[in-house]
Amino acid sequence: MTIFPDKASFLAALHNMPAPDGTALAQARERQAQLTKPAGSLGRLEDIALFMAGWQGQAIPTLDAVQAVVFAGNHGVAAQGVSAFPSEVTAQMVENFRHGGAAINALSRACGASLSVVPLDLEQPTGDITVQPAMSEAECLAALQAGAASVLSADLLLVGEMGIGNTTPAAALCAQAFGGAGQDWVGRGTGIDDAGVARKMAAVDAALVRHGADCVDPFETLRRLGGREIAAMAGAILAARWRRIPVLLDGFICCAAIAPLVVAAPALTDHCLSAHCSAETAHGRLLAAMGLEPLLRLDLRLGEGSGAALAVQIVRAALATHAEMATFAEAQVADPL
Amino acid sequence: MTIFPDKASFLAALHNMPAPDGTALAQARERQAQLTKPAGSLGRLEDIALFMAGWQGQAIPTLDAVQAVVFAGNHGVAAQGVSAFPSEVTAQMVENFRHGGAAINALSRACGASLSVVPLDLEQPTGDITVQPAMSEAECLAALQAGAASVLSADLLLVGEMGIGNTTPAAALCAQAFGGAGQDWVGRGTGIDDAGVARKMAAVDAALVRHGADCVDPFETLRRLGGREIAAMAGAILAARWRRIPVLLDGFICCAAIAPLVVAAPALTDHCLSAHCSAETAHGRLLAAMGLEPLLRLDLRLGEGSGAALAVQIVRAALATHAEMATFAEAQVADPL
Repeated sequence: MTIFPDKASFLAALHNMPAPDGTALAQARERQAQLTKPAGSLGRLEDIALFMAGWQGQAIPTLDAVQAVVFAGNHGVAAQGVSAFPSEVTAQMVENFRHGGAAINALSRACGASLSVVPLDLEQPTGDITVQPAMSEAECLAALQAGAASVLSADLLLVGEMGIGNTTPAAALCAQAFGGAGQDWVGRGTGIDDAGVARKMAAVDAALVRHGADCVDPFETLRRLGGREIAAMAGAILAARWRRIPVLLDGFICCAAIAPLVVAAPALTDHCLSAHCSAETAHGRLLAAMGLEPLLRLDLRLGEGSGAALAVQIVRAALATHAEMATFAEAQVADPL
Repeated sequence: MTIFPDKASFLAALHNMPAPDGTALAQARERQAQLTKPAGSLGRLEDIALFMAGWQGQAIPTLDAVQAVVFAGNHGVAAQGVSAFPSEVTAQMVENFRHGGAAINALSRACGASLSVVPLDLEQPTGDITVQPAMSEAECLAALQAGAASVLSADLLLVGEMGIGNTTPAAALCAQAFGGAGQDWVGRGTGIDDAGVARKMAAVDAALVRHGADCVDPFETLRRLGGREIAAMAGAILAARWRRIPVLLDGFICCAAIAPLVVAAPALTDHCLSAHCSAETAHGRLLAAMGLEPLLRLDLRLGEGSGAALAVQIVRAALATHAEMATFAEAQVADPL
C-alpha cells in the first residue's frame, strides 16, 4: 500500500481525514446505558468502548489483532553529545528486539500484541539538525512510506521507537509546533547529566534558528527537524487513520512525531488515545498542547512502545465490560430509585 | 484457617506483622539494574517487581494464581435515603455476579483472576449507624472471620465489595480515622442527587456524634461505623498479610475498610498497592492520608474490585519485564557512556 508517493499526497492525506462511524458510536452508547452499573461508573473505560466502536464501525468492538511496530533510526545530532548512550546501541537494541529480550518484547507478549521491528538505514544517520536538514525530501518520503507500509489490518495499532539521541529532534519538533525554546522541551532522555541537558537545549535552539523559517508545512518540519523513525511513526499513524484503525500513542517521541501534523490538522488525534504520560519532562506539556488526556501515568521513560503496550490491557478490559456485561433487564436488577 | 477467634487476636494480628523478604528484594533489585533499559526507565513497573519479589519471597515473582473476592452486605443506614439505588439491588447484583454478568466478572476474566463472591447475611442489614452500632461484637468478628477465611493461596489478592448504601459507613470510617466531618468524606456514591448528598453528610455526622467517643480501637470503629462487607475486606487484607500475599486495594470502600487499622498500625499497607484512585470524591484524600500513590486514575466509581482487576494487568506486565528481559551482558548491548 502506497499512500504517500510524494509530498503533496502526504499533505492531502492529512486533510479531509475520515471520521468515526456515527451509527456504531450511537449503538455503543445505547448499550452502555443498559449495562448493570450506575451510569458513568466505569469512567474512562466507557469512553474507550465508544471510541473503539466508532473507529471499528461496530457497536461491540473487538481486540483480536493488536499490532505493535517499533521503528528505529540513528541521528546525526547524536554527535553533539546529547545522549547518555552511544549510537551503536540503536542497532544493538534492534538485535535485542529480534531476539525477544527487550521490554517491548515482554510487554507485547503480556498484552497479546504481535510485534514487528523496522530499522531504517541505521548505518546512515540523519543529518545533524543543528547544521543541516535531518533528511532530504526523498529520505523523508521513504521514512513516511515505510511507516505507512508497516500498518497491517489490525484492531488496534501501537507505534514505538528506538533511536539514540532522538529526544533532541523530538524536542525541536515540539518547539517548532507549539512554540518555546530548547529549555521548554528538553529533558534527560535515557538519563543524561546536567551538562548533556545543556548541550541538548543548545542543539534544539541551534536547529530552530537554522530551520525555523523553512518549516512551512508538516512535511518540511518533519524533514528538517525529525528523523527516520520519527517520520515513520507519523506515516504509520496517518495511514492507520485512513484505514480507520485506532492508535495508542506511546511516549514523548511518538507524540512529538505527530506534533507538526496536529498543528496543521488538529483532527489527526481523533483516532488516537494517549496511552500514558511519561517521566520525560516535556511529555505532559506536549499532551496538554495536543489536548490529550493520558490513560496511564507510571513514570515510564523508555520508549519502544512500552507505555502503549501497557495501555492495551486497559482497552481490552474496557471492551470486555462493554461486550460481556449483562443489561439491567437481562439480570433483573432494579433501576435507580 | 481461623486467625481472629476473638477481638484480642484480631488486634494482636494487626501489630507485629510480618515484613517482606529482604533477600529476595535485594536480588530483584540487582536483576533490575542489569536489564536492557536505562536505569529506572520502567518507572513504577520496577517498583512493582520489587514489591512482589519481597512479598512472594522470590527474586523473580510470579502471577499464576490471582484471587478476586467480592464481599456483599446490606446497611441499616440505607433507610436514611443515602443511596440512588434500593437495598434489594445488593442481592440482585450478587445473583448477577453468580451468573457472570457484572463488570467484575468481565474484568476478572480479562485479567485472569478467579472470582469468588461472599454475601454476608444480606437479609439482615446492619444496624443504622446514626442510632446504634452497625454490628454486635459477634457479628463483627464473624465478618472479619469470613474475610480471613476467604483468602486462598494466591500470588495476588483483590478484594472488592457490593453493598447499597456503603459509601456512608465508609465516609464515617474515614472521618473517624483521619478527622473531618461528613462534608469532608461524603460523595455521590452510585450517583445520588444533592439532597441525597446532604442526607449522607447528616448521617455521617450523626454517626460520629453517636459513636465517636467509643471508637477506642480499630475493632470498635469497624464494629460501630462499618458494615459486614467492610469488616470482611479488612479481615481478608490482614489475613493476606500473615500469609505474605500481596494485595491490590480497590476503591473508596476498600480503602476506608482498612482506614481504622492503618491509623493504629501504619505498616498494614506495606503489602498493599493502591490499584486506582476512583472518581468518588474523597478517595484521593483518603489515599493521601494513607500515603498511597494509586497506579491508575480512570474515573471509575463502581466498586466490586473493578479498579483492582484493571491493575492486575499492570502488575502482570511489570513481572513480565522483570522475568523476561535480557541483561546488557546477555544481549551484548553497550552500557551507558
